[in-house]
Amino acid sequence: MTHVVVLGGGFGGLWAARALRKAPVRVTLVDRRNHHLFQPLLYQVATAALNPSNIAVPIRRILRRQRNAAVALAEAVSVDVARRRVILSDGEIGYDHLIVAVGARHSYFGRDEWAVHAPGLKSIEDALDIRRRVFLAFETAELHPDRRREWMTFAIVGGGPTGVELAGALAEISRFTLAADFRTIDPREARILLLEGGDRVLSSLHPDLSAKAERDLRRLGVEVRTKARVTAVDERGVAVGDERIPARTVLWAAGIAASPLLRSLGAPLDRAGRVKVTPELVLPGHADVFVVGDAAYVESDGKPVPGLAPAAIQEGVHAARNVLRALCGEPLLPFRYEDRGILATIGRAAAVADIRGLRLSGLVAWLTWVFVHIFFLIGFRNRFIVMFEWVLAYLTFDRGARLITGDARSILPPPDTSVRRP
Amino acid sequence: MTHVVVLGGGFGGLWAARALRKAPVRVTLVDRRNHHLFQPLLYQVATAALNPSNIAVPIRRILRRQRNAAVALAEAVSVDVARRRVILSDGEIGYDHLIVAVGARHSYFGRDEWAVHAPGLKSIEDALDIRRRVFLAFETAELHPDRRREWMTFAIVGGGPTGVELAGALAEISRFTLAADFRTIDPREARILLLEGGDRVLSSLHPDLSAKAERDLRRLGVEVRTKARVTAVDERGVAVGDERIPARTVLWAAGIAASPLLRSLGAPLDRAGRVKVTPELVLPGHADVFVVGDAAYVESDGKPVPGLAPAAIQEGVHAARNVLRALCGEPLLPFRYEDRGILATIGRAAAVADIRGLRLSGLVAWLTWVFVHIFFLIGFRNRFIVMFEWVLAYLTFDRGARLITGDARSILPPPDTSVRRP
Repeated sequence: MTHVVVLGGGFGGLWAARALRKAPVRVTLVDRRNHHLFQPLLYQVATAALNPSNIAVPIRRILRRQRNAAVALAEAVSVDVARRRVILSDGEIGYDHLIVAVGARHSYFGRDEWAVHAPGLKSIEDALDIRRRVFLAFETAELHPDRRREWMTFAIVGGGPTGVELAGALAEISRFTLAADFRTIDPREARILLLEGGDRVLSSLHPDLSAKAERDLRRLGVEVRTKARVTAVDERGVAVGDERIPARTVLWAAGIAASPLLRSLGAPLDRAGRVKVTPELVLPGHADVFVVGDAAYVESDGKPVPGLAPAAIQEGVHAARNVLRALCGEPLLPFRYEDRGILATIGRAAAVADIRGLRLSGLVAWLTWVFVHIFFLIGFRNRFIVMFEWVLAYLTFDRGARLITGDARSILPPPDTSVRRP
Repeated sequence: MTHVVVLGGGFGGLWAARALRKAPVRVTLVDRRNHHLFQPLLYQVATAALNPSNIAVPIRRILRRQRNAAVALAEAVSVDVARRRVILSDGEIGYDHLIVAVGARHSYFGRDEWAVHAPGLKSIEDALDIRRRVFLAFETAELHPDRRREWMTFAIVGGGPTGVELAGALAEISRFTLAADFRTIDPREARILLLEGGDRVLSSLHPDLSAKAERDLRRLGVEVRTKARVTAVDERGVAVGDERIPARTVLWAAGIAASPLLRSLGAPLDRAGRVKVTPELVLPGHADVFVVGDAAYVESDGKPVPGLAPAAIQEGVHAARNVLRALCGEPLLPFRYEDRGILATIGRAAAVADIRGLRLSGLVAWLTWVFVHIFFLIGFRNRFIVMFEWVLAYLTFDRGARLITGDARSILPPPDTSVRRP
């Protein structure tokens, strides 16, 4: 039986595998994680509003009833397109058709050494790391009030949806959630900076919505700086142009760098490392290999398809259908992106939405955002719990997952022998 | 103002701090974790039924409204009783009265090198480590069917409540939760061993209840072995006497070793390293230092007070009251343990309970267990979500938190270059 291998269990890969559920093929989905992650809500794990498992479901569980699909927990290192084999960190796997949906990470614009000081937000571990850093910063400020200024300054680099959402959530945490919890510091004095290199936040939306988002952020107390080019990041802070900003917590939400695995495909890549596929989502020169989601660069109606979950889903399904067309000897169809809109939330009852030209903001946009995200979550359990958490957070300003977890040394404030407590 | 320092935010320490809420004292609670942990349900995090934050609440959040209490996230290393100072890993803190509630860990009976192969269950990190090991074992068996026997054998050392609960939960995971999720293995074939050194499980309960628990475990498919003395533990398995049992997952639920910090108090310790306190819970020779919970050895009505949450709570409150009596110049009162009963759950609708001589088993005991644990959880949010998770798990046999998370290398099956996948 024809063997279709899908690399990656994100939106593109998972929907590709599911689209093959009634096909006369054998499907193997390979992922180095055991779970599919609902990335649009990952910032809520980083900011203690949700638990990891509310937005992450075992891939094996999702495909349980799809009897033609197997799941392999393994790391794909490269693809040998000539021999039709995927090279794993531990073994190999052969394919007849391959759908590559390996996603992307953040790009530090050639300064990868910044990553250790300014973590990005792509995995559950990233989110728990950010959560730990944020809450530990307040704990450290409480213990060392003389250094509270730098510990209570949070810089977020990148004014796209993730950066905006992180900044809004951090503002709410400091203004509301933690307001009464400390004795020597006032968390409401925390300084939250959103640093965007371009001339407006949410640049993929209409300028009116960018302006509204910026206004909502300022209302929450976020300092929004546009045209702010980050020139240095280290343990103690960040530099914007020549200005040095002491900030013990720097979060990275900028740039995109596709998976290094794609280099092994031998096809031209764009600047972000994405494969320039044919309109049919095919790897040029290899009709048996498809590339989808953040791993692919493709245009639709003359515009690049954006790196959004709905686009990855549409591409995954389209690639699966093209695999079936190839099996039947039918010609492949070009991909056409159906733009269902774009949403970004800022905080409590504040969001912006651009739905096929209909521009919403404030409460209406926020409710749209809430219901769209609940709807697309996988599983009754998660929908119910996330809805419950959001209602409770709305009523109480509290956040349910304010845990500092990790290695024994990383969950304590950093030592400071100069300080002697009373 | 008199400064009362409480070491440890577990049951003993947290209830001690709360009991001082109306007292004319200043309270500082020191813990190296930012959260109070509801340990009786920790095995449910390890077995993917609950999320960490369902059973862990920031100590700072709990004491938010207690204005005379401050919380310090710091590690206490030792106590200088002569100078009345607690030595932290980063600084010092002085006290007028000290309540030591630093708890205990597992004891490996002098074989600490076993710890790396057979993790215990005392912290959130422990629970997530066990969860990772358990689910990764099934993933590895799926990828390497030739070695599935050792990967699908789980040995639990220690037949107390934690061991019984872990064994029951692992049986349910393999028999029900995972039954349909794999393609090359049948999770129902998993072998689960409960190894108890004594002659019955749950030895602190009446022998009739031990027998019932053992019967319920066997019904779930757990191999219960009593008088099983573990003589070796390594990466590949465990030895019982001279018999070697290949088992890639070994969990430790035996023994108790109190915190090494207690040695600095200079008082006699029992074999488990607990301080032998006076009947007033006072450190012998130091009327300003109290020791409670798993850190203390004390008798009540001629019997040792057991290492249970209700006992720690009662001792914490009693120590706080004795502090206040000391401040008023009143004589200290001896501690008397009020035995409210003991409960242990085995699985779905199966538990045993011994409540002041009333011995329950089966569904009645299980419902008692459910309601007692919901009642003692902190916070409406957690009570509601845990109840919801349990109802859903009861109806569907599913578990909501089956995530494998951790370091990049630890979340993949271990490499095996001898195997080449098709």
